[in-house]
Amino acid sequence: MPVLVQKFGGTSVKSVGRIKNVASIVTRAAEHNKLVVVVSAMGDTTNYLLKLARQVSRSSNKRELDALLATGEQISIALVVMAIHELGFPAVSLTGQQLGIITENVHTTARIVEIKTERLESYLNKGVIVVAAGFQGTNPEGDITTLGRGGSDTTAVALAAALGAQACDIYTDVSGVYTADPNLVSSARLINEISYEEMLEMARVGAKVLHPRAVELARKHKILLRVRNTFDPQHPGTVLKEVANMEVYLPVSGVTLDRDQARLAILKVPHTPGVAGEIFNALDEHRISADMIIQAFHQGRGVTDISFTVKRGDLEAARKVLDEQVGQLGADGVLSDENVAKVSIIGAGLMDHPDIPARMFTALGRAGINIEMISTSDIRISCIISDRDANRAINLIHDLFHLDEGEAPQGE
Amino acid sequence: MPVLVQKFGGTSVKSVGRIKNVASIVTRAAEHNKLVVVVSAMGDTTNYLLKLARQVSRSSNKRELDALLATGEQISIALVVMAIHELGFPAVSLTGQQLGIITENVHTTARIVEIKTERLESYLNKGVIVVAAGFQGTNPEGDITTLGRGGSDTTAVALAAALGAQACDIYTDVSGVYTADPNLVSSARLINEISYEEMLEMARVGAKVLHPRAVELARKHKILLRVRNTFDPQHPGTVLKEVANMEVYLPVSGVTLDRDQARLAILKVPHTPGVAGEIFNALDEHRISADMIIQAFHQGRGVTDISFTVKRGDLEAARKVLDEQVGQLGADGVLSDENVAKVSIIGAGLMDHPDIPARMFTALGRAGINIEMISTSDIRISCIISDRDANRAINLIHDLFHLDEGEAPQGE
Repeated sequence: MPVLVQKFGGTSVKSVGRIKNVASIVTRAAEHNKLVVVVSAMGDTTNYLLKLARQVSRSSNKRELDALLATGEQISIALVVMAIHELGFPAVSLTGQQLGIITENVHTTARIVEIKTERLESYLNKGVIVVAAGFQGTNPEGDITTLGRGGSDTTAVALAAALGAQACDIYTDVSGVYTADPNLVSSARLINEISYEEMLEMARVGAKVLHPRAVELARKHKILLRVRNTFDPQHPGTVLKEVANMEVYLPVSGVTLDRDQARLAILKVPHTPGVAGEIFNALDEHRISADMIIQAFHQGRGVTDISFTVKRGDLEAARKVLDEQVGQLGADGVLSDENVAKVSIIGAGLMDHPDIPARMFTALGRAGINIEMISTSDIRISCIISDRDANRAINLIHDLFHLDEGEAPQGE
Repeated sequence: MPVLVQKFGGTSVKSVGRIKNVASIVTRAAEHNKLVVVVSAMGDTTNYLLKLARQVSRSSNKRELDALLATGEQISIALVVMAIHELGFPAVSLTGQQLGIITENVHTTARIVEIKTERLESYLNKGVIVVAAGFQGTNPEGDITTLGRGGSDTTAVALAAALGAQACDIYTDVSGVYTADPNLVSSARLINEISYEEMLEMARVGAKVLHPRAVELARKHKILLRVRNTFDPQHPGTVLKEVANMEVYLPVSGVTLDRDQARLAILKVPHTPGVAGEIFNALDEHRISADMIIQAFHQGRGVTDISFTVKRGDLEAARKVLDEQVGQLGADGVLSDENVAKVSIIGAGLMDHPDIPARMFTALGRAGINIEMISTSDIRISCIISDRDANRAINLIHDLFHLDEGEAPQGE
């Protein structure tokens, strides 16, 4: 029998009733597969534990924080196994340590180094369903580590890779990946197939259904990844595949919106080597990630403006860093704007359709929407616009590229 | 520096405020000791987890139940370490598995087989306070096991034995062991020193401050055990020692009351070999423990009555077993009474004072309290009486032996 990995997030196991629903999905699949079921902590457990930690200590030790948070998944796996037993199927829970998931010796954001699958496989070969704790592993000393953001998705894909699984199904509370957020665009359409690269770009610029880290890992190991709905398990969902395997693809697959954006600019910085390095090193020291970095050269005056975006929560800290830089670099000043949003289109076919950027910019302009910054990759175009235009922009672009119907598939 | 083990129960860590209190007790002791701190799950965590398990499954798998319950202590140890860090002391949490606590391959009631202390000792030698999860270990396969009743006390004593600790302090919500329950006897007096044997008898017949299993282990390994108050940590508490080390002892150390008792009798059983064995094997098959077993021979009639006590919750199940036995053995019938209580006196000096049983029985008789059953050991006398006389009896006996003042110490 082939190996199948299923992953259920926190909302899928947040109550006893939902745990029983997961057990029924799992046991249906168990008849035709060797099954590994990765689960997250129940609903708000992680937040509850973090709150306790904050009450005890202002800056919790990361090793202890990992030991604390890992209990969340340990509770879920035991309960899911009990629910599977109730349906008469053999199952066993394994913690990160028992799964043989060895990570770097780093806490709260560890990366997986190796998975020793002997124990896991011996259960699978006996026909026992393995319920695996997501998000956690152990370092070589045997301390509990956690994987940080996207951790449970990453555990699922990593296990699928280590076991040579036929597929990895990520169960969530929607039926798959949409051409746009259905809460924002009523005509949004479910995407049946999408390439890893497109999904990666979509996840990076606001599609929350899959974490980019897990998508990247799936791409690297060529894992067939499916996004499916816990509350509509018959639905086939969205399949992620290598673009090379797909005969046709769309020039534009989807449009995303990220409102967690703020824009900053440092004005009239001396245009000398190393200046940009100094600014972004200073931001990095404060753990602020900058995105959409644009340097506009003021011809002939030996100075330049440098603009970029940060997450809205980082704006104040970033402003402080820049204010210091203004003095040190002899710049003119700092501008900031927190009322911006990033609207992006993603498509593996973008590079073959050079008209698409122009069509997008023109449509926004005709609607009176000002584009403040632009950045592009081979398969993505992002525009920073005013936050109050965000909703209008995403709907307009969705219509422009006929995403509701799927623009006519185009061969290579 | 000597090794000291401190143990804090669930009520001592049931809130963030209490965890901080524990940290302050711990750090005071850390200045003069290599310190191991054993903690239980916070307050009602274990009950909460059991409730979840019951909602998922009527008869939870024991391996999974252990994995589930062990999270309770894992949460506590991480939070206690964070609280110790806040006070500026180095500390690290270790789960049962990380402590090297190897148990039998039995779930929910495992006994400790071995403790591999290398890792634990390397932290102690570096001056790091080790905060240890009570109640848990792993079986040789690496599965999480739990120790059952008295588990965290047992972990503390076992670690003290494995490390050759100078002492093991069991912190609880009272200042030590009393001559009687202070809630029942207002003149109850704190006992400064008590022998393992006396404590063992007291714990078995109703004193709840220490679990008999932990006392037994301490006696076997000659661990200096102290019962102390989390909320009055300066108080010296009660010290448990070998009686041989004590120059003086009291004929009666304390009086206990156990209301969780019911009485059963099977009447006119044929008085032939193997009959008692059959009855108590049948009870054992239903996991019912019988206590105070008394067989009264009816002279010349070839039949006998067999009486015993069980925990009140076991009465109904025990009655059913006996009703079957009546038919099989050709007995006359079954009597039961759930309104009984066991009042006991304990003292290492009892065997040297043969007048004491008579004094106890006479005093009860004069007060109009009927004694329904009696059982004795070298250092204990227990009487089953009517539950409604229980309070009166315990106060009367406490006065009779002047336990409020400590009867004049008597040399050998």
